[in-house]
Amino acid sequence: MERTLYPVADQPENRKEVACVWQIDANSLESIAIGAGILGTGGGGNPYLGKLQVRRQLDSNADIVVVSLAEVPDSAVVTTVGAMGAPVVSVERISRGDEALVAMRALEQHIGTPITHLIPGEIGGSNAMLPMVISAMTGLPLIDGDGMGRAFPELQMDTFMIYGVPAAPAAIADVHHSAVVWSSIRDAESLERQARALTIQMGGSAGLAFPVLGGAQVKELAIPETISFARAIGDAVRKARSDHENPVEAIQSICDARLLFSGKIVDVERRMAAGFSRGNLTLEVLAEQRSRRITIEFQNENLIVMEDQVLASVPDLICIVDQDTAEPVTTELLRYGLRVSVLLMPAPDLLKTAAALKVVGPEAFGYDQITYRPMEGVYGLKAD
Amino acid sequence: MERTLYPVADQPENRKEVACVWQIDANSLESIAIGAGILGTGGGGNPYLGKLQVRRQLDSNADIVVVSLAEVPDSAVVTTVGAMGAPVVSVERISRGDEALVAMRALEQHIGTPITHLIPGEIGGSNAMLPMVISAMTGLPLIDGDGMGRAFPELQMDTFMIYGVPAAPAAIADVHHSAVVWSSIRDAESLERQARALTIQMGGSAGLAFPVLGGAQVKELAIPETISFARAIGDAVRKARSDHENPVEAIQSICDARLLFSGKIVDVERRMAAGFSRGNLTLEVLAEQRSRRITIEFQNENLIVMEDQVLASVPDLICIVDQDTAEPVTTELLRYGLRVSVLLMPAPDLLKTAAALKVVGPEAFGYDQITYRPMEGVYGLKAD
Repeated sequence: MERTLYPVADQPENRKEVACVWQIDANSLESIAIGAGILGTGGGGNPYLGKLQVRRQLDSNADIVVVSLAEVPDSAVVTTVGAMGAPVVSVERISRGDEALVAMRALEQHIGTPITHLIPGEIGGSNAMLPMVISAMTGLPLIDGDGMGRAFPELQMDTFMIYGVPAAPAAIADVHHSAVVWSSIRDAESLERQARALTIQMGGSAGLAFPVLGGAQVKELAIPETISFARAIGDAVRKARSDHENPVEAIQSICDARLLFSGKIVDVERRMAAGFSRGNLTLEVLAEQRSRRITIEFQNENLIVMEDQVLASVPDLICIVDQDTAEPVTTELLRYGLRVSVLLMPAPDLLKTAAALKVVGPEAFGYDQITYRPMEGVYGLKAD
Repeated sequence: MERTLYPVADQPENRKEVACVWQIDANSLESIAIGAGILGTGGGGNPYLGKLQVRRQLDSNADIVVVSLAEVPDSAVVTTVGAMGAPVVSVERISRGDEALVAMRALEQHIGTPITHLIPGEIGGSNAMLPMVISAMTGLPLIDGDGMGRAFPELQMDTFMIYGVPAAPAAIADVHHSAVVWSSIRDAESLERQARALTIQMGGSAGLAFPVLGGAQVKELAIPETISFARAIGDAVRKARSDHENPVEAIQSICDARLLFSGKIVDVERRMAAGFSRGNLTLEVLAEQRSRRITIEFQNENLIVMEDQVLASVPDLICIVDQDTAEPVTTELLRYGLRVSVLLMPAPDLLKTAAALKVVGPEAFGYDQITYRPMEGVYGLKAD
């Protein structure tokens, strides 16, 4: 099978940017899955299952080409593809994997023009993996970036929606290939409610393709280089593991992540409500001869860290990882006795504006009394 | 304003069929509303509100042209338009009336060709009126027929779905003009579940346009002349009222309706469940010096009449009307003390086949122990 890179890279005037066009292989996939799991802050779907789907594609010699935002023409027609549903569903029910492709085809039919590029809606969890599967199936290049720089539970919570991209057209499809297209919608919150109600009818999970973005819009609104960031996190973790160094420290060495604490999970409360996995966990932390009890509340993603007061909140990234291996611990895998580390990472700047905080700040999740206090630092890879 | 009839009637070779092309006016509207209310067997939405919407159209000189099935070319592109939602919602919340038009436009955009004719999905209740509103708004002719000859609570329960017309494409729209198109769907039951879940998210009511039918299909599968039948029932009732005769007897004189009994409603149990109005009523009937207690169970529509045994069941029409005026009593208007007559009418033959009974017989509504025993007689107007 002929394996060609995205042609932009082959044009001589772009040779200097060749590093910005790369292919995902089995090795980088391993790293991205770890990084996406960590950036998923507990949600976004279990990256392990998504990774298996991508690996199946790579095993059958499919190409997954990643292009940087600079490579995207203004005239590109871009969409995000992802899975909708609560993570606890996806553990039990493996999707066919092509629901999102069916949704994307329905979207193309609706707009009457083919999609030219894919971009993950969220870099967190399975929703970082699924666009790779669809990229492999279709040959469409994948843009190195996403709409969140992390994961969030609802459709209106990405930079595209926050900064005014219309939520329609949007499409979802289920395992039986029901395909539904919104040709118009009041706002992204209405789409979120309607699509989630449909997803529940569809058995709890569905493939999603939305919104339709122009290349110029994507370059303005996407969080850049988040696939590369996820890969770098995973690379650091894997190198530390094989070098018998501390993988949690390795993460801190490449970005502005801060270790809040390490401890043992002593309680987990979780319930399914309206298609979400909501709840909280209690962490027992031994420090300076005394025992501290930390609570982390989540709605698919980790939202808030409390002791006597709020220690951290969305949109900053609250990442729970295995204390020894730095393997991400997603919400549905939380259980009594796990020894974990809690890392805090600064949110991307596009999530810290007043407009963004209305949608992804503590208040948006019902914490009316909590004011977001951004941690110090900058999202993404540290400059060398 | 120029008022032209549907051009087919003007073609000389069709002059003999001119009686089959007629316009709805304020007088026929009054009659159709009464007839549609009776044929709605308790459901289909309150015809009074629908009638007001149609009258508003007539008052502004809009044309509503009705054509018989014989007038429909095989190449016609036909859809049904209607409202989705529980009747108790529509009493409280008047829809804008154009949601179904928005849905129809979304459907046209999807199929890439304009709709040429409308047909009511069900002749019962508001869903007989709404196609007239859309006919007035668009100038599209309305076919004299429907998919049920009555009303039923779910989308799969019409002759089009029963006899294999694909349920997709289908479109629904809400008062905020969200428009959703199913480009594919597993079956009509899935569409019913998904559309109802969306309708609840849309505030409890939505406009619907589905399925897309060819003219030849409509001629094969529609229950014919049901708008005319509704009009004739209403004409008979109104004439009896003004002549101080018995309107309930007047209905029996023009079709194979049978009076089961007259009595007083002494109990009504009703609850909203999954978007439906479900429950039962108890009727006290005085006969031959003894008091009989009759129970009628409903799910939007009246499903079954019981005393010690089953006296009647779907798909035969169980019509509750005011004992004195024969005004239809819809499910949401049932209340203690009303004196009513219960009329039974034979179901259309297309609803009595084995294929149809699976979908609209007692078993389809959870009555596993009840076998449908068709009453004697034929659906529709008696031949003169």
